[in-house]
Amino acid sequence: MKLKYAVVGTGAIGGFYGGKLVQSGQSVDFLVHSDYEQVKQHGLKIDSVMGNFHLNDLSVFNNTADMKPSDVVLVCLKTTHNYLLKDILPPLLHRDTLVVVLQNGLGMEADLAKEFPGLNIAGGLTIVSAVKVAPGHISHLTYGKMSAGAYQVNDSKVFNQVCEDFINAGIPVDTNDLMLSRWRKLVWNIPFSGLSVLFNTTTDKLLQNEDSKQLCQELMFEVIEGANYFGRLIKRDFADTMFGTTELMGVHSPSMKIDHDNKRIMEIESIYTRPLKEALAAGYNMKLVAMLEKQLKFIQSQQ
Amino acid sequence: MKLKYAVVGTGAIGGFYGGKLVQSGQSVDFLVHSDYEQVKQHGLKIDSVMGNFHLNDLSVFNNTADMKPSDVVLVCLKTTHNYLLKDILPPLLHRDTLVVVLQNGLGMEADLAKEFPGLNIAGGLTIVSAVKVAPGHISHLTYGKMSAGAYQVNDSKVFNQVCEDFINAGIPVDTNDLMLSRWRKLVWNIPFSGLSVLFNTTTDKLLQNEDSKQLCQELMFEVIEGANYFGRLIKRDFADTMFGTTELMGVHSPSMKIDHDNKRIMEIESIYTRPLKEALAAGYNMKLVAMLEKQLKFIQSQQ
Repeated sequence: MKLKYAVVGTGAIGGFYGGKLVQSGQSVDFLVHSDYEQVKQHGLKIDSVMGNFHLNDLSVFNNTADMKPSDVVLVCLKTTHNYLLKDILPPLLHRDTLVVVLQNGLGMEADLAKEFPGLNIAGGLTIVSAVKVAPGHISHLTYGKMSAGAYQVNDSKVFNQVCEDFINAGIPVDTNDLMLSRWRKLVWNIPFSGLSVLFNTTTDKLLQNEDSKQLCQELMFEVIEGANYFGRLIKRDFADTMFGTTELMGVHSPSMKIDHDNKRIMEIESIYTRPLKEALAAGYNMKLVAMLEKQLKFIQSQQ
Repeated sequence: MKLKYAVVGTGAIGGFYGGKLVQSGQSVDFLVHSDYEQVKQHGLKIDSVMGNFHLNDLSVFNNTADMKPSDVVLVCLKTTHNYLLKDILPPLLHRDTLVVVLQNGLGMEADLAKEFPGLNIAGGLTIVSAVKVAPGHISHLTYGKMSAGAYQVNDSKVFNQVCEDFINAGIPVDTNDLMLSRWRKLVWNIPFSGLSVLFNTTTDKLLQNEDSKQLCQELMFEVIEGANYFGRLIKRDFADTMFGTTELMGVHSPSMKIDHDNKRIMEIESIYTRPLKEALAAGYNMKLVAMLEKQLKFIQSQQ
């Protein structure tokens, strides 16, 4: 089954995954905002540890009204722009379109399902480190498998085909319970994203100091407990796994840190506020996470 | 009764209080570290909202071995230097000397009592805002009464005379249970000192933002609960009083912020670590305070 893809939000993540799909022969429409002219004229340049490549003559748009429906829509916006989706998505949808949310945090699928009742929705999480170094120019620094999962799909054939297409494009994919994957990623994101912003530092520094490392661990334990209340079992020793992963990253800036450094609004809502609400609704108050959330909101307010 | 005073640590606080005592006719020896030559030659210049004054021909020392015992020793060091007291104090003590700890935090009197069994010890807390703007030059920005209290004294006459001498010097003094005063001050210090360092900001900014204000309140409530476990009753509405006080301060940098800006070691141990230990020993875990303590220790480690 040959699927037609659309990428909504051609930043580092959208450009990289969309680019890999094009490279492997898939048909992909790109919705591009700030880099439209550059990508239209000069395509996408991707420096990747998996091999550099340059794609020209891409199907590029700066307005979804000009686009045709696709079989699969990859949502690669920052979650801070998800309020735009109610206008962006309709022209891209046919009856069976699958929307795949490639974002960090929690609650995006639930919001979409509420806005578009009956929509086919899946999600994917990556540990990939990719940054846009210039308009239309993406640097992909580390490998990272994608954990994909269905949220609500009428027919799993399209979802399965998407996973296969990604694998064919060179992206390792495992499929898992989506909410479990999202909470597992939060176990990493909540301590390391927030503290790297708060301290204007990198993840290696957070590991080298006993106090910040202990704080990371306490935050991880709270998120793990939150996940467990939410109904997704994560064991406490997953914190050790995350410390190991982080050590391997070396000097690393989480995407929230990069956003903040570039004066972009941070994804506090999806990475902190929403998980806090969901855990609280399930009966657990992540107190330290709530403190970090307030600290980040203060920092955001001062920018 | 005429008392002979010694000031240990002639920074902003020691210089201001010692200076006021001299101005009112008391006999004061000053132990001066970094500004010794300046103060020896040019005295102390104090710009104060209570009236500017300049004191020459002070009794100035840079080594306690050269000093004679005093009736009252005002300890005005930063608590980060209290490890020096075991060497500094002995030459200054006669049998009835009263040591008055004019420092922030908790546990300093207990440490002294352990190091010098039977020593007469009192303490005092101030809300005074004073900074050293140059060697031997102090700027006193706001009035602030002192809350004094005995810790262990054989005879309260000397303590009472000290309070009277301060009042005669123009410093309003009330006497209160010392540990209650220390915990009340911590209700202010713990949120505002730490967060102003963490966010590189001033107290007015912390009040203007809803998230940081709420965080201040939550930290205050924890400290109040800690005090109550410790056996010192503070009501929750004392937090409102502290917000009111802070509002009146306008643009204000807590002394910990000034220390950090000037690359001095922060008083984390006396203002955070010790209160945490005391509350925990009394059965209460101040979790948010513990998080802020770790954050400050990380920041300190990166300086």
